[in-house]
Amino acid sequence: MTSANFATDGSRPALAPSDPIGVFDSGVGGLTILHELLVSLPAEDYVYVGDTVHFPYGDRTQDELRQFSLELTDHLLAVGAKLIVVACNSASAAALETLEQHLVEAAPDVAVIGVLRPAAQLAVVSSHSGRIGLLATPATVANGAYERAIAAADSHVQLESVACADLARMIQSGFPFDERVVETVRGYCAPLRAAAVDTVILGSTHYPLCAAMLQRMLGRDVKLVSAGAGVARSVERALAARDLLNPQKTEGTYRFQCTDDAASFKAVGTRFLQMPLGDVEQVRMPVAVAR
Amino acid sequence: MTSANFATDGSRPALAPSDPIGVFDSGVGGLTILHELLVSLPAEDYVYVGDTVHFPYGDRTQDELRQFSLELTDHLLAVGAKLIVVACNSASAAALETLEQHLVEAAPDVAVIGVLRPAAQLAVVSSHSGRIGLLATPATVANGAYERAIAAADSHVQLESVACADLARMIQSGFPFDERVVETVRGYCAPLRAAAVDTVILGSTHYPLCAAMLQRMLGRDVKLVSAGAGVARSVERALAARDLLNPQKTEGTYRFQCTDDAASFKAVGTRFLQMPLGDVEQVRMPVAVAR
Repeated sequence: MTSANFATDGSRPALAPSDPIGVFDSGVGGLTILHELLVSLPAEDYVYVGDTVHFPYGDRTQDELRQFSLELTDHLLAVGAKLIVVACNSASAAALETLEQHLVEAAPDVAVIGVLRPAAQLAVVSSHSGRIGLLATPATVANGAYERAIAAADSHVQLESVACADLARMIQSGFPFDERVVETVRGYCAPLRAAAVDTVILGSTHYPLCAAMLQRMLGRDVKLVSAGAGVARSVERALAARDLLNPQKTEGTYRFQCTDDAASFKAVGTRFLQMPLGDVEQVRMPVAVAR
Repeated sequence: MTSANFATDGSRPALAPSDPIGVFDSGVGGLTILHELLVSLPAEDYVYVGDTVHFPYGDRTQDELRQFSLELTDHLLAVGAKLIVVACNSASAAALETLEQHLVEAAPDVAVIGVLRPAAQLAVVSSHSGRIGLLATPATVANGAYERAIAAADSHVQLESVACADLARMIQSGFPFDERVVETVRGYCAPLRAAAVDTVILGSTHYPLCAAMLQRMLGRDVKLVSAGAGVARSVERALAARDLLNPQKTEGTYRFQCTDDAASFKAVGTRFLQMPLGDVEQVRMPVAVAR
Protein backbone atom coordinates (compact mmCIF):
# COMPACT_ATOMS: atom_id res chain seq x y z
CA MET A 1 0.00 0.00 0.00
CA THR A 2 1.41 3.35 -0.98
CA SER A 3 0.01 6.84 -0.95
CA ALA A 4 1.41 10.02 -2.39
CA ASN A 5 2.30 11.75 0.84
CA PHE A 6 3.59 8.82 2.84
CA ALA A 7 6.81 6.86 2.73
CA THR A 8 6.67 4.07 0.17
CA ASP A 9 9.36 1.94 1.76
CA GLY A 10 11.59 1.89 4.79
CA SER A 11 14.30 4.16 3.38
CA ARG A 12 12.53 7.00 1.56
CA PRO A 13 10.75 9.67 3.58
CA ALA A 14 7.35 10.90 2.42
CA LEU A 15 7.36 13.51 -0.30
CA ALA A 16 6.48 17.07 0.65
CA PRO A 17 5.34 20.09 -1.41
CA SER A 18 8.55 21.85 -0.35
CA ASP A 19 10.73 19.16 -1.99
CA PRO A 20 12.54 20.22 -5.18
CA ILE A 21 11.76 19.26 -8.75
CA GLY A 22 14.66 17.35 -10.34
CA VAL A 23 15.63 18.13 -13.93
CA PHE A 24 18.31 16.44 -16.00
CA ASP A 25 19.88 16.76 -19.44
CA SER A 26 23.17 15.90 -21.12
CA GLY A 27 24.36 19.48 -20.69
CA VAL A 28 23.05 23.01 -20.92
CA GLY A 29 20.31 22.47 -23.53
CA GLY A 30 17.76 21.47 -20.91
CA LEU A 31 18.15 24.91 -19.35
CA THR A 32 15.68 26.18 -21.97
CA ILE A 33 13.17 23.77 -20.36
CA LEU A 34 14.16 24.88 -16.86
CA HIS A 35 13.75 28.47 -18.05
CA GLU A 36 10.07 27.75 -18.80
CA LEU A 37 9.61 25.99 -15.47
CA LEU A 38 11.14 28.92 -13.57
CA VAL A 39 8.75 31.30 -15.30
CA SER A 40 5.64 29.11 -15.17
CA LEU A 41 6.09 27.55 -11.71
CA PRO A 42 8.14 30.18 -9.87
CA ALA A 43 7.29 28.98 -6.35
CA GLU A 44 9.02 25.62 -6.85
CA ASP A 45 12.60 24.73 -5.93
CA TYR A 46 14.71 23.05 -8.62
CA VAL A 47 17.80 20.87 -8.81
CA TYR A 48 19.25 20.61 -12.31
CA VAL A 49 21.90 18.05 -13.30
CA GLY A 50 23.77 18.34 -16.60
CA ASP A 51 25.49 15.07 -17.47
CA THR A 52 28.24 16.96 -19.26
CA VAL A 53 30.79 14.16 -19.01
CA HIS A 54 28.61 12.18 -21.46
CA PHE A 55 27.68 15.12 -23.72
CA PRO A 56 26.36 14.98 -26.42
CA TYR A 57 23.63 12.38 -25.94
CA GLY A 58 22.86 12.49 -29.67
CA ASP A 59 25.94 10.34 -30.28
CA ARG A 60 25.06 7.68 -27.66
CA THR A 61 23.42 4.28 -28.08
CA GLN A 62 19.91 3.64 -26.76
CA ASP A 63 21.38 1.36 -24.07
CA GLU A 64 23.79 4.03 -22.91
CA LEU A 65 21.02 6.61 -22.78
CA ARG A 66 18.89 4.30 -20.65
CA GLN A 67 21.80 3.64 -18.29
CA PHE A 68 22.72 7.31 -17.89
CA SER A 69 19.08 8.25 -17.39
CA LEU A 70 18.64 5.65 -14.65
CA GLU A 71 21.74 6.90 -12.84
CA LEU A 72 20.63 10.53 -13.07
CA THR A 73 17.15 9.64 -11.88
CA ASP A 74 18.51 7.75 -8.87
CA HIS A 75 20.78 10.69 -8.12
CA LEU A 76 17.83 13.10 -8.19
CA LEU A 77 15.79 10.75 -5.97
CA ALA A 78 18.72 10.71 -3.54
CA VAL A 79 18.71 14.52 -3.30
CA GLY A 80 14.99 14.38 -2.54
CA ALA A 81 13.30 15.25 -5.85
CA LYS A 82 9.50 15.01 -5.78
CA LEU A 83 9.26 14.79 -9.58
CA ILE A 84 11.76 14.14 -12.40
CA VAL A 85 11.88 16.08 -15.68
CA VAL A 86 13.85 14.51 -18.53
CA ALA A 87 14.79 17.80 -20.22
CA CYS A 88 16.41 16.12 -23.21
CA ASN A 89 14.93 14.81 -26.44
CA SER A 90 17.42 11.97 -26.92
CA ALA A 91 17.00 10.68 -23.36
CA SER A 92 13.21 11.09 -23.47
CA ALA A 93 13.04 9.13 -26.71
CA ALA A 94 15.27 6.32 -25.47
CA ALA A 95 14.60 6.05 -21.76
CA LEU A 96 11.23 7.41 -20.64
CA GLU A 97 9.50 4.04 -20.48
CA THR A 98 12.47 2.50 -18.69
CA LEU A 99 12.37 5.29 -16.12
CA GLU A 100 8.63 4.91 -15.60
CA GLN A 101 9.09 1.18 -14.96
CA HIS A 102 12.02 1.85 -12.64
CA LEU A 103 10.05 4.37 -10.59
CA VAL A 104 7.14 1.98 -10.10
CA GLU A 105 9.44 0.05 -7.78
CA ALA A 106 11.95 2.67 -6.66
CA ALA A 107 9.62 5.57 -5.92
CA PRO A 108 6.03 5.08 -7.05
CA ASP A 109 5.01 8.50 -5.77
CA VAL A 110 7.52 10.26 -8.05
CA ALA A 111 6.31 11.13 -11.57
CA VAL A 112 8.68 11.43 -14.53
CA ILE A 113 7.93 13.86 -17.37
CA GLY A 114 9.73 13.81 -20.73
CA VAL A 115 9.79 16.44 -23.47
CA LEU A 116 8.43 14.50 -26.46
CA ARG A 117 4.79 14.01 -25.57
CA PRO A 118 4.18 17.63 -24.47
CA ALA A 119 5.85 18.95 -27.64
CA ALA A 120 3.93 16.56 -29.88
CA GLN A 121 0.63 17.48 -28.24
CA LEU A 122 1.28 21.21 -28.55
CA ALA A 123 2.13 20.76 -32.21
CA VAL A 124 -0.98 18.72 -32.99
CA VAL A 125 -3.20 21.22 -31.21
CA SER A 126 -1.58 24.09 -33.13
CA SER A 127 -1.83 22.63 -36.64
CA HIS A 128 -4.70 23.43 -38.98
CA SER A 129 -3.35 21.75 -42.10
CA GLY A 130 -2.16 18.55 -40.44
CA ARG A 131 1.30 19.06 -41.92
CA ILE A 132 3.84 19.35 -39.10
CA GLY A 133 7.60 19.71 -39.38
CA LEU A 134 10.21 18.36 -36.99
CA LEU A 135 13.73 19.67 -36.54
CA ALA A 136 15.76 17.30 -34.37
CA THR A 137 19.10 15.55 -34.00
CA PRO A 138 19.74 12.57 -36.29
CA ALA A 139 19.44 10.27 -33.24
CA THR A 140 16.02 11.61 -32.28
CA VAL A 141 14.75 11.43 -35.87
CA ALA A 142 16.10 7.88 -36.30
CA ASN A 143 14.47 6.74 -33.05
CA GLY A 144 11.01 7.50 -34.48
CA ALA A 145 9.63 8.51 -31.08
CA TYR A 146 8.22 11.80 -32.38
CA GLU A 147 6.39 9.99 -35.18
CA ARG A 148 4.85 7.66 -32.62
CA ALA A 149 3.95 10.51 -30.26
CA ILE A 150 2.35 12.47 -33.10
CA ALA A 151 0.48 9.42 -34.39
CA ALA A 152 -0.78 8.71 -30.87
CA ALA A 153 -2.12 12.26 -30.65
CA ASP A 154 -3.65 12.35 -34.15
CA SER A 155 -3.25 9.67 -36.78
CA HIS A 156 -4.14 12.08 -39.59
CA VAL A 157 -1.08 14.26 -39.14
CA GLN A 158 1.76 14.08 -41.63
CA LEU A 159 5.20 14.64 -40.06
CA GLU A 160 8.07 16.03 -42.14
CA SER A 161 11.24 15.25 -40.17
CA VAL A 162 14.56 16.98 -40.81
CA ALA A 163 17.67 15.53 -39.17
CA CYS A 164 19.86 18.50 -38.24
CA ALA A 165 23.39 17.18 -37.94
CA ASP A 166 25.53 19.47 -35.81
CA LEU A 167 23.00 22.27 -35.30
CA ALA A 168 22.82 21.81 -31.51
CA ARG A 169 26.60 21.81 -31.25
CA MET A 170 26.80 24.84 -33.53
CA ILE A 171 24.32 26.73 -31.34
CA GLN A 172 26.17 25.74 -28.18
CA SER A 173 29.54 27.01 -29.45
CA GLY A 174 28.43 29.54 -32.00
CA PHE A 175 27.57 32.72 -30.15
CA PRO A 176 27.35 35.34 -31.52
CA PHE A 177 25.73 33.57 -34.43
CA ASP A 178 27.52 34.07 -37.73
CA GLU A 179 26.44 33.65 -41.34
CA ARG A 180 27.46 29.98 -41.22
CA VAL A 181 24.75 29.28 -38.63
CA VAL A 182 22.24 31.27 -40.70
CA GLU A 183 23.03 29.27 -43.84
CA THR A 184 22.86 25.97 -41.94
CA VAL A 185 19.48 26.84 -40.48
CA ARG A 186 18.26 27.99 -43.88
CA GLY A 187 19.19 24.61 -45.34
CA TYR A 188 17.19 22.77 -42.70
CA CYS A 189 14.17 24.99 -43.33
CA ALA A 190 14.08 24.28 -47.07
CA PRO A 191 12.30 20.88 -46.88
CA LEU A 192 9.83 22.30 -44.35
CA ARG A 193 8.98 25.16 -46.68
CA ALA A 194 8.64 22.72 -49.56
CA ALA A 195 6.27 20.56 -47.49
CA ALA A 196 4.19 23.65 -46.59
CA VAL A 197 4.01 22.73 -42.92
CA ASP A 198 2.07 25.13 -40.67
CA THR A 199 3.72 24.02 -37.42
CA VAL A 200 7.32 23.11 -36.62
CA ILE A 201 8.51 21.23 -33.55
CA LEU A 202 11.87 22.40 -32.22
CA GLY A 203 12.92 18.86 -31.34
CA SER A 204 16.12 19.74 -29.50
CA THR A 205 16.34 21.82 -26.38
CA HIS A 206 19.06 23.90 -28.07
CA TYR A 207 16.90 25.11 -30.93
CA PRO A 208 14.86 27.77 -29.09
CA LEU A 209 18.05 29.85 -29.22
CA CYS A 210 17.63 30.25 -32.97
CA ALA A 211 13.83 30.57 -32.91
CA ALA A 212 13.91 34.11 -34.30
CA MET A 213 16.01 33.02 -37.26
CA LEU A 214 13.69 30.08 -37.92
CA GLN A 215 10.58 32.25 -37.67
CA ARG A 216 12.04 34.69 -40.17
CA MET A 217 12.92 31.94 -42.64
CA LEU A 218 9.71 29.94 -42.28
CA GLY A 219 7.43 32.96 -42.23
CA ARG A 220 5.36 34.20 -39.33
CA ASP A 221 2.34 32.07 -40.28
CA VAL A 222 4.27 28.98 -39.23
CA LYS A 223 3.88 28.20 -35.54
CA LEU A 224 7.09 27.17 -33.77
CA VAL A 225 6.55 24.72 -30.94
CA SER A 226 9.10 23.94 -28.26
CA ALA A 227 8.49 21.58 -25.39
CA GLY A 228 8.99 24.02 -22.54
CA ALA A 229 5.48 25.38 -22.09
CA GLY A 230 3.94 21.93 -22.46
CA VAL A 231 6.39 20.39 -19.99
CA ALA A 232 5.60 23.08 -17.43
CA ARG A 233 1.88 22.35 -17.79
CA SER A 234 2.47 18.58 -17.46
CA VAL A 235 4.60 19.10 -14.36
CA GLU A 236 1.94 21.30 -12.82
CA ARG A 237 -0.80 18.73 -13.47
CA ALA A 238 1.31 15.87 -12.11
CA LEU A 239 2.12 17.78 -8.92
CA ALA A 240 -1.44 19.02 -8.46
CA ALA A 241 -2.78 15.46 -8.75
CA ARG A 242 -0.44 14.42 -5.92
CA ASP A 243 -1.02 17.52 -3.72
CA LEU A 244 2.65 18.34 -4.19
CA LEU A 245 2.53 21.87 -5.64
CA ASN A 246 4.58 24.24 -3.51
CA PRO A 247 2.05 26.69 -2.01
CA GLN A 248 4.55 29.44 -1.09
CA LYS A 249 3.95 32.87 -2.62
CA THR A 250 7.61 33.81 -3.04
CA GLU A 251 10.09 32.60 -5.64
CA GLY A 252 11.76 29.28 -5.01
CA THR A 253 15.45 28.48 -5.39
CA TYR A 254 17.34 26.69 -8.13
CA ARG A 255 20.75 25.06 -8.13
CA PHE A 256 22.97 23.33 -10.63
CA GLN A 257 25.13 20.28 -10.76
CA CYS A 258 27.11 18.77 -13.63
CA THR A 259 29.26 15.72 -14.13
CA ASP A 260 32.17 17.50 -15.85
CA ASP A 261 33.90 20.88 -15.39
CA ALA A 262 31.61 23.29 -13.54
CA ALA A 263 33.16 26.49 -14.90
CA SER A 264 32.45 25.72 -18.55
CA PHE A 265 28.89 24.65 -17.68
CA LYS A 266 28.37 27.99 -16.02
CA ALA A 267 29.94 29.99 -18.86
CA VAL A 268 27.70 28.47 -21.54
CA GLY A 269 24.66 27.88 -19.35
CA THR A 270 23.81 31.50 -18.59
CA ARG A 271 22.98 32.11 -22.24
CA PHE A 272 20.52 29.22 -22.24
CA LEU A 273 18.86 30.08 -18.92
CA GLN A 274 18.76 33.88 -19.43
CA MET A 275 19.03 34.24 -15.65
CA PRO A 276 21.95 34.11 -13.21
CA LEU A 277 23.18 30.57 -12.61
CA GLY A 278 24.88 31.07 -9.24
CA ASP A 279 27.25 28.33 -8.13
CA VAL A 280 27.56 25.12 -10.13
CA GLU A 281 28.63 21.96 -8.30
CA GLN A 282 30.48 19.10 -9.98
CA VAL A 283 29.06 15.71 -8.94
CA ARG A 284 29.86 12.08 -9.72
CA MET A 285 27.17 9.60 -10.59
CA PRO A 286 27.22 6.31 -8.67
CA VAL A 287 28.88 3.46 -10.54
CA ALA A 288 26.31 1.97 -12.87
CA VAL A 289 24.54 -1.05 -11.48
CA ALA A 290 23.48 -3.73 -13.96
CA ARG A 291 19.70 -3.75 -14.04
CA MET B 1 -0.87 67.28 -55.32
CA THR B 2 0.97 64.25 -54.01
CA SER B 3 0.39 60.55 -54.31
CA ALA B 4 2.08 57.71 -52.50
CA ASN B 5 3.99 56.28 -55.42
CA PHE B 6 5.06 59.44 -57.19
CA ALA B 7 7.67 62.02 -56.43
CA THR B 8 6.43 64.67 -54.06
CA ASP B 9 8.89 67.35 -55.03
CA GLY B 10 11.66 67.99 -57.50
CA SER B 11 14.42 66.28 -55.57
CA ARG B 12 12.97 63.05 -54.10
CA PRO B 13 12.25 60.12 -56.39
CA ALA B 14 8.99 58.22 -55.96
CA LEU B 15 8.95 55.60 -53.22
CA ALA B 16 9.02 51.96 -54.27
CA PRO B 17 8.07 48.75 -52.41
CA SER B 18 11.71 47.69 -52.71
CA ASP B 19 12.91 50.71 -50.70
CA PRO B 20 14.16 49.98 -47.19
CA ILE B 21 12.46 50.70 -43.89
CA GLY B 22 14.52 53.10 -41.78
CA VAL B 23 14.84 52.45 -38.05
CA PHE B 24 16.63 54.59 -35.46
CA ASP B 25 17.46 54.54 -31.78
CA SER B 26 20.08 55.97 -29.46
CA GLY B 27 22.00 52.71 -29.52
CA VAL B 28 21.41 48.98 -29.51
CA GLY B 29 18.12 48.91 -27.57
CA GLY B 30 16.05 49.45 -30.71
CA LEU B 31 17.42 46.18 -32.05
CA THR B 32 14.74 44.41 -30.00
CA ILE B 33 12.22 46.30 -32.15
CA LEU B 34 14.14 45.49 -35.34
CA HIS B 35 14.19 41.87 -34.19
CA GLU B 36 10.38 41.83 -34.24
CA LEU B 37 10.31 43.53 -37.64
CA LEU B 38 12.76 41.00 -39.11
CA VAL B 39 10.56 38.16 -37.87
CA SER B 40 7.18 39.71 -38.71
CA LEU B 41 8.05 41.38 -42.02
CA PRO B 42 10.93 39.25 -43.34
CA ALA B 43 10.64 40.33 -46.97
CA GLU B 44 11.53 43.95 -46.19
CA ASP B 45 14.96 45.55 -46.35
CA TYR B 46 16.06 47.55 -43.30
CA VAL B 47 18.55 50.30 -42.50
CA TYR B 48 19.15 50.77 -38.77
CA VAL B 49 20.96 53.77 -37.30
CA GLY B 50 22.10 53.79 -33.68
CA ASP B 51 22.91 57.33 -32.52
CA THR B 52 25.52 55.96 -30.15
CA VAL B 53 27.47 59.21 -29.91
CA HIS B 54 24.48 60.68 -28.05
CA PHE B 55 23.67 57.56 -25.97
CA PRO B 56 21.81 57.38 -23.61
CA TYR B 57 18.79 59.41 -24.73
CA GLY B 58 17.28 59.07 -21.24
CA ASP B 59 19.67 61.78 -20.05
CA ARG B 60 18.87 64.27 -22.84
CA THR B 61 16.53 67.27 -22.86
CA GLN B 62 13.34 67.22 -24.91
CA ASP B 63 14.86 69.80 -27.29
CA GLU B 64 17.96 67.69 -27.84
CA LEU B 65 15.84 64.61 -28.51
CA ARG B 66 13.79 66.50 -31.09
CA GLN B 67 16.95 67.77 -32.79
CA PHE B 68 18.66 64.35 -32.89
CA SER B 69 15.46 62.73 -34.14
CA LEU B 70 15.13 65.25 -36.97
CA GLU B 71 18.72 64.66 -38.04
CA LEU B 72 18.32 60.89 -37.98
CA THR B 73 15.06 61.10 -39.91
CA ASP B 74 16.64 63.29 -42.58
CA HIS B 75 19.56 60.86 -42.77
CA LEU B 76 17.19 57.93 -43.28
CA LEU B 77 15.26 59.88 -45.92
CA ALA B 78 18.57 60.53 -47.68
CA VAL B 79 19.36 56.81 -47.84
CA GLY B 80 15.92 56.22 -49.37
CA ALA B 81 13.79 54.98 -46.48
CA LYS B 82 10.11 54.48 -47.39
CA LEU B 83 9.03 54.57 -43.71
CA ILE B 84 10.68 55.62 -40.44
CA VAL B 85 10.48 53.69 -37.18
CA VAL B 86 11.45 55.56 -34.01
CA ALA B 87 12.63 52.49 -32.08
CA CYS B 88 13.21 54.38 -28.84
CA ASN B 89 10.84 55.31 -26.04
CA SER B 90 12.55 58.58 -25.11
CA ALA B 91 12.66 59.81 -28.71
CA SER B 92 9.10 58.67 -29.40
CA ALA B 93 7.86 60.49 -26.31
CA ALA B 94 9.71 63.71 -27.11
CA ALA B 95 9.80 63.93 -30.88
CA LEU B 96 7.09 61.94 -32.66
CA GLU B 97 4.80 64.93 -33.27
CA THR B 98 7.74 67.03 -34.42
CA LEU B 99 8.74 64.32 -36.89
CA GLU B 100 5.19 63.98 -38.20
CA GLN B 101 5.04 67.73 -38.82
CA HIS B 102 8.48 67.71 -40.44
CA LEU B 103 7.53 64.89 -42.82
CA VAL B 104 4.38 66.67 -43.96
CA GLU B 105 6.70 69.05 -45.77
CA ALA B 106 9.86 67.01 -46.27
CA ALA B 107 8.35 63.72 -47.41
CA PRO B 108 4.57 63.48 -47.10
CA ASP B 109 4.55 59.94 -48.50
CA VAL B 110 6.80 58.67 -45.69
CA ALA B 111 5.07 57.53 -42.50
CA VAL B 112 6.74 57.63 -39.10
CA ILE B 113 5.91 55.06 -36.41
CA GLY B 114 6.88 55.39 -32.75
CA VAL B 115 6.88 52.76 -30.02
CA LEU B 116 4.56 54.32 -27.44
CA ARG B 117 1.16 54.13 -29.09
CA PRO B 118 1.53 50.48 -30.22
CA ALA B 119 2.71 49.44 -26.74
CA ALA B 120 -0.08 51.37 -25.01
CA GLN B 121 -2.70 49.84 -27.31
CA LEU B 122 -1.40 46.31 -26.78
CA ALA B 123 -1.48 46.84 -23.03
CA VAL B 124 -5.03 48.22 -23.00
CA VAL B 125 -6.27 45.35 -25.16
CA SER B 126 -4.57 42.84 -22.86
CA SER B 127 -5.83 44.14 -19.53
CA HIS B 128 -8.93 42.75 -17.85
CA SER B 129 -8.65 44.59 -14.55
CA GLY B 130 -7.81 48.01 -15.97
CA ARG B 131 -4.69 48.16 -13.77
CA ILE B 132 -1.61 48.42 -15.98
CA GLY B 133 2.02 48.79 -14.89
CA LEU B 134 4.75 50.70 -16.70
CA LEU B 135 8.46 50.10 -16.33
CA ALA B 136 10.41 52.87 -18.08
CA THR B 137 13.34 55.25 -17.76
CA PRO B 138 12.88 58.25 -15.46
CA ALA B 139 12.79 60.51 -18.55
CA THR B 140 9.99 58.54 -20.19
CA VAL B 141 7.97 58.40 -16.98
CA ALA B 142 8.47 62.14 -16.35
CA ASN B 143 7.40 62.99 -19.88
CA GLY B 144 3.94 61.52 -19.22
CA ALA B 145 3.55 60.33 -22.80
CA TYR B 146 2.54 56.82 -21.77
CA GLU B 147 -0.16 58.18 -19.46
CA ARG B 148 -1.52 60.23 -22.37
CA ALA B 149 -1.33 57.29 -24.79
CA ILE B 150 -3.08 54.99 -22.30
CA ALA B 151 -5.74 57.60 -21.53
CA ALA B 152 -6.32 58.10 -25.25
CA ALA B 153 -6.87 54.36 -25.67
CA ASP B 154 -9.07 53.91 -22.58
CA SER B 155 -9.77 56.58 -20.00
CA HIS B 156 -10.77 53.96 -17.39
CA VAL B 157 -7.31 52.45 -17.12
CA GLN B 158 -5.16 53.13 -14.08
CA LEU B 159 -1.43 53.29 -14.85
CA GLU B 160 1.15 52.45 -12.17
CA SER B 161 4.44 53.89 -13.44
CA VAL B 162 7.82 52.82 -12.07
CA ALA B 163 10.86 54.89 -13.03
CA CYS B 164 13.73 52.43 -13.39
CA ALA B 165 16.93 54.42 -12.96
CA ASP B 166 19.88 52.63 -14.53
CA LEU B 167 18.11 49.41 -15.50
CA ALA B 168 18.66 49.91 -19.24
CA ARG B 169 22.34 50.64 -18.69
CA MET B 170 22.64 47.65 -16.36
CA ILE B 171 21.10 45.36 -18.97
CA GLN B 172 23.36 46.76 -21.69
CA SER B 173 26.54 46.14 -19.70
CA GLY B 174 25.43 43.37 -17.39
CA PHE B 175 25.62 40.13 -19.32
CA PRO B 176 25.64 37.50 -17.95
CA PHE B 177 23.11 38.85 -15.50
CA ASP B 178 24.22 38.64 -11.89
CA GLU B 179 22.34 38.79 -8.60
CA ARG B 180 22.62 42.58 -8.60
CA VAL B 181 20.45 42.78 -11.71
CA VAL B 182 17.99 40.31 -10.19
CA GLU B 183 17.68 42.37 -7.00
CA THR B 184 17.29 45.61 -8.96
CA VAL B 185 14.53 44.12 -11.10
CA ARG B 186 12.86 42.69 -8.01
CA GLY B 187 12.77 46.15 -6.47
CA TYR B 188 11.06 47.62 -9.52
CA CYS B 189 8.47 44.84 -9.49
CA ALA B 190 7.44 45.45 -5.88
CA PRO B 191 5.11 48.42 -6.53
CA LEU B 192 3.58 46.60 -9.50
CA ARG B 193 2.82 43.58 -7.34
CA ALA B 194 1.40 45.85 -4.66
CA ALA B 195 -0.85 47.54 -7.24
CA ALA B 196 -2.04 44.12 -8.49
CA VAL B 197 -1.60 45.07 -12.14
CA ASP B 198 -2.51 42.37 -14.69
CA THR B 199 -0.43 43.86 -17.54
CA VAL B 200 3.00 45.47 -17.57
CA ILE B 201 4.43 47.61 -20.36
CA LEU B 202 8.17 47.16 -20.90
CA GLY B 203 8.66 50.85 -21.62
CA SER B 204 12.28 50.66 -22.70
CA THR B 205 13.58 48.70 -25.66
CA HIS B 206 16.22 47.18 -23.36
CA TYR B 207 13.77 45.52 -21.01
CA PRO B 208 12.74 42.55 -23.18
CA LEU B 209 16.17 41.12 -22.33
CA CYS B 210 15.04 40.56 -18.75
CA ALA B 211 11.48 39.51 -19.61
CA ALA B 212 11.95 36.01 -18.17
CA MET B 213 13.12 37.42 -14.84
CA LEU B 214 10.17 39.85 -14.77
CA GLN B 215 7.68 37.12 -15.62
CA ARG B 216 9.01 34.95 -12.82
CA MET B 217 8.80 37.78 -10.29
CA LEU B 218 5.40 39.12 -11.37
CA GLY B 219 3.83 35.71 -11.86
CA ARG B 220 2.71 34.14 -15.08
CA ASP B 221 -0.79 35.62 -14.86
CA VAL B 222 0.67 39.06 -15.54
CA LYS B 223 0.93 39.82 -19.24
CA LEU B 224 4.20 41.50 -20.30
CA VAL B 225 3.79 43.85 -23.24
CA SER B 226 6.67 45.16 -25.32
CA ALA B 227 6.22 47.42 -28.29
CA GLY B 228 7.81 45.17 -30.93
CA ALA B 229 4.82 43.18 -32.10
CA GLY B 230 2.57 46.25 -32.15
CA VAL B 231 5.15 48.29 -34.05
CA ALA B 232 5.47 45.56 -36.67
CA ARG B 233 1.70 45.53 -37.13
CA SER B 234 1.60 49.36 -37.39
CA VAL B 235 4.39 49.33 -39.96
CA GLU B 236 2.62 46.69 -41.99
CA ARG B 237 -0.65 48.63 -42.00
CA ALA B 238 1.10 51.88 -42.93
CA LEU B 239 2.93 50.23 -45.84
CA ALA B 240 -0.14 48.33 -47.01
CA ALA B 241 -2.18 51.55 -47.08
CA ARG B 242 0.45 53.08 -49.38
CA ASP B 243 0.99 49.98 -51.58
CA LEU B 244 4.56 49.89 -50.32
CA LEU B 245 4.84 46.37 -48.85
CA ASN B 246 7.72 44.50 -50.45
CA PRO B 247 6.13 41.64 -52.39
CA GLN B 248 9.23 39.46 -52.66
CA LYS B 249 9.01 35.94 -51.25
CA THR B 250 12.60 35.73 -50.03
CA GLU B 251 14.17 37.37 -46.98
CA GLY B 252 15.25 40.95 -47.34
CA THR B 253 18.53 42.45 -46.17
CA TYR B 254 19.41 44.51 -43.14
CA ARG B 255 22.34 46.77 -42.42
CA PHE B 256 23.60 48.85 -39.56
CA GLN B 257 25.03 52.29 -39.04
CA CYS B 258 26.01 54.08 -35.86
CA THR B 259 27.36 57.48 -34.97
CA ASP B 260 30.14 56.28 -32.63
CA ASP B 261 32.55 53.32 -32.62
CA ALA B 262 31.24 50.53 -34.86
CA ALA B 263 33.06 47.68 -33.12
CA SER B 264 31.44 48.21 -29.74
CA PHE B 265 28.01 48.59 -31.37
CA LYS B 266 28.53 45.23 -33.03
CA ALA B 267 29.80 43.53 -29.87
CA VAL B 268 26.79 44.52 -27.78
CA GLY B 269 24.23 44.55 -30.59
CA THR B 270 24.29 40.85 -31.43
CA ARG B 271 22.83 40.02 -28.03
CA PHE B 272 19.91 42.38 -28.62
CA LEU B 273 19.21 41.28 -32.20
CA GLN B 274 19.74 37.53 -31.63
CA MET B 275 20.89 37.30 -35.26
CA PRO B 276 24.19 38.05 -37.02
CA LEU B 277 24.80 41.77 -37.42
CA GLY B 278 27.24 41.68 -40.31
CA ASP B 279 29.22 44.86 -40.96
CA VAL B 280 28.45 48.03 -39.03
CA GLU B 281 29.25 51.36 -40.65
CA GLN B 282 30.10 54.50 -38.69
CA VAL B 283 28.30 57.56 -40.08
CA ARG B 284 28.18 61.27 -39.22
CA MET B 285 24.93 63.14 -39.01
CA PRO B 286 24.74 66.41 -40.95
CA VAL B 287 25.41 69.49 -38.83
CA ALA B 288 22.16 70.40 -37.11
CA VAL B 289 20.17 73.06 -38.92
CA ALA B 290 18.10 75.41 -36.79
CA ARG B 291 14.45 74.73 -37.51
